[in-house]
Amino acid sequence: MENGEIPEDANEHCPGPQSESAGKSDACEGCPNQQICATAPKGPDPDLVSIAERMATVKHKILVLSGKGGVGKSTFSAQLSFALAAMGFQVGLLDIDICGPSIPKMLGLEGQEIHQSNLGWSPVYVESNLGVMSIGFMIPHPDEAVIWRGPRKNGLIKQFLKDVYWGELDFLVVDAPPGTSDEHISIVQCLDVAGIDGAIIVTTPQQVSLIDVRKEVSFCKKVGVKVLGVVENMSGLCQPIRDFKFMKMTDTGEQRDVTEWVWEYLTEKAPEMLNLIACSEVFDSSRGGAAKMCTEMGVPFLGKVPLDPQLCKAAEEGRSCFVGKECVVSAPALKKIIEKLMEVQGLSMVAENGA
Amino acid sequence: MENGEIPEDANEHCPGPQSESAGKSDACEGCPNQQICATAPKGPDPDLVSIAERMATVKHKILVLSGKGGVGKSTFSAQLSFALAAMGFQVGLLDIDICGPSIPKMLGLEGQEIHQSNLGWSPVYVESNLGVMSIGFMIPHPDEAVIWRGPRKNGLIKQFLKDVYWGELDFLVVDAPPGTSDEHISIVQCLDVAGIDGAIIVTTPQQVSLIDVRKEVSFCKKVGVKVLGVVENMSGLCQPIRDFKFMKMTDTGEQRDVTEWVWEYLTEKAPEMLNLIACSEVFDSSRGGAAKMCTEMGVPFLGKVPLDPQLCKAAEEGRSCFVGKECVVSAPALKKIIEKLMEVQGLSMVAENGA
Repeated sequence: MENGEIPEDANEHCPGPQSESAGKSDACEGCPNQQICATAPKGPDPDLVSIAERMATVKHKILVLSGKGGVGKSTFSAQLSFALAAMGFQVGLLDIDICGPSIPKMLGLEGQEIHQSNLGWSPVYVESNLGVMSIGFMIPHPDEAVIWRGPRKNGLIKQFLKDVYWGELDFLVVDAPPGTSDEHISIVQCLDVAGIDGAIIVTTPQQVSLIDVRKEVSFCKKVGVKVLGVVENMSGLCQPIRDFKFMKMTDTGEQRDVTEWVWEYLTEKAPEMLNLIACSEVFDSSRGGAAKMCTEMGVPFLGKVPLDPQLCKAAEEGRSCFVGKECVVSAPALKKIIEKLMEVQGLSMVAENGA
Repeated sequence: MENGEIPEDANEHCPGPQSESAGKSDACEGCPNQQICATAPKGPDPDLVSIAERMATVKHKILVLSGKGGVGKSTFSAQLSFALAAMGFQVGLLDIDICGPSIPKMLGLEGQEIHQSNLGWSPVYVESNLGVMSIGFMIPHPDEAVIWRGPRKNGLIKQFLKDVYWGELDFLVVDAPPGTSDEHISIVQCLDVAGIDGAIIVTTPQQVSLIDVRKEVSFCKKVGVKVLGVVENMSGLCQPIRDFKFMKMTDTGEQRDVTEWVWEYLTEKAPEMLNLIACSEVFDSSRGGAAKMCTEMGVPFLGKVPLDPQLCKAAEEGRSCFVGKECVVSAPALKKIIEKLMEVQGLSMVAENGA
C-alpha cells in the first residue's frame, strides 16, 4: 500500500493516490479522482509519525479479533488483560469498537470519564497497572447511538493511538469490533509503523462463526498480521445439575415448571444425581469446530472455553474471573490459553524476563 | 437531512451540502468543503428514484437489527422468513451484512450464485415464495475476507435495492449487521423513499447486549424508523434432559463422563425424569432483561426465545425450525413472537387478508 489504497472507481493502471505521478500519469486521464489525486498532499501521513512515537513505549501490541460478533471477544480481551495485569505486567486495553463499546462495562468502569493532561488523554485505570481507553468513556448518554460512518470512526482510532498517554506498557491489548472493515484496516495501517505482535481470533464452535473466522484469518494474511492463535469460546455449557430448572411439557404444548417436584423426586429416588454436572454441547461441533479449522488453515489453536454462567456474570459485573468468586469451569480453561499464548514465539521471552 | 448530512469538519451554521446555497453562503467562507459543496450536483439522488420504483411491488419492509453481534439476529431473520413463507406470503430476505454474511448458510444456500436477467439480479430461491439475496452469493472463495470500507459497502447496498428483481413481495426482511454505522445509515436512507414498516431488534438478556440495544432504539428514533418490537434471544438454555451429558467430579478435580450410568440409573430409579426439559439461565437476567428495558424505553417487547441446541442445529443445516425435525423448545416461542408481530399495527391487516 506504499502508493496509497487504490480507489474502487479508479482507472486501470492507477499509480496509487500517494504516488508521485498521482493524477498526472497517462492512466489518470479521465479518472474521476484525477483532480483530487493531483492536488492532495503526498508523502507519509504525519499522524503515523506521532503514532510511532507514542507506541515506542509499548513493548507488545496484540489485536483481539473475531469474524462474527457476540462470540465473547470483549469478554476474552477483558479477562486476558486482567490476567496479564495479575501477572505483574503493565497492561493497556484499547477498545476500538466505536459503535458498540462493551469494555467499560466489562471492567466495571461505567460512568468513568477520560481526563486530559499535557501528556495527552489519560486512560481510565482499573488497577495501577491496567489502563483502559474506550469511546464508552466519551459519550455523555450511554443509551445514545454513535451513528458514525467509516471516516469518522477511523479518525477516532487514529486519535486513540496518537493522543492517549499510556506510559510504559508491556502489553497493549486492542479489542476490535467484529468483521473486516474500516476499524480493522485503520488499526492495522496505523499500528503497522510501530509493529503488531499478532492477532488472537475468538470464535464459537458454530459453522456460521467458523466461516467468518476463516475470513478473519484471510484478512490477517492479506494485511500481514501474524495469527497468534484461535480461541474457541462458548464451547458447550457445563453447570452443576442443582443450578438447572426443570420443565414438563403439558398435553397442550405449554411448559410447566416442575423444579421443586424434581428435587423431592430425585432426593427420594435417585440422590446420586444431585452432585453431577450436566453438559450440553449447545452448538453442534460434530464437524470438528475451531481445532479442525486451525489445522486446515495452518494457524495455532489456543484452546476452548466453555459457556460458563459464572463467567458471564463476572463479565456483567466487570470483575476478573480469576479472583474472589473464581469461575470454577472457565477460569482454568482461560489460564491454559494464556499460558499457551505466552509460549507462542515472541511472547515467551517477556514471560520469562518478567515485567 | 433534507439538505444533506452535515460533514463533521463543516463550519458553524452550515446550510447543508445539498442545499441551494451550499458552498455559496457566508457561513461557507473558509470551510474545507466549500469547493466540493459549490460544485457537487444537487437535488435528489437519481438512485433513490430507481429504488422507489423497485420497491413499489414490495408491501412491507422490515429491518432486523441488533446492537451487538452474535445475538442470533440472522437466525431470527431466517426463521422469520421461513415462517412467513410457510404462511403463504411472498417473502424476500436481503442480507446486508457485507463483511460477515451468514444468511446463505442459514438457509442452506451455500455455493449458490446469483443470476442476471433483463429484469435485474435474480434472488436465490429456497422455496417458490422465498427468495434470498446476499453478498455471500457473490464471493468466489467463501474463506476470503471482504475488506471493504464504508463507501463500497454502501454502494453494494444501494445496488441490492436498485437492481434485485424481487417481483411482487408481501414482505422484504432485511438482515443488517450489528451496530449503527454505514450499512444502517445507508439502508435507512435508501429505503426511506419506499417506506419502512419498522425494525425488529434482537438482543440477549446480557447487560452488555442490552446497553447496545438501547443505542439501537435511539438510532431508530433518530432516523425515524418505528421499533416494531424487541426479541430476547438466548433467553436461557432449554433442552430435553435426554440430550445432556453428565459428568462427575472426581476427587482429583477431573471430570468423568457418567452419561451411560445416569441413563441406567434414572430408567430404573426415577424414570419420570427422562421426559423432562432442563433449563439453565446462562446469562444473568436478574435485572429484568429485555422486557424491563422495553418498558423503560417505551417500545414493544415481542417475547423470549430460549437458547435451543435444536434451533442452532437447524440454523447450521439451513432449514426451518418449524417443519420436519421440529425444534421442540424454540419453535413455539418463535411462533408466538411472529403472531405478536402480526398483531402490531399495520401488519395485522396483511395477516387477515392473506397473501
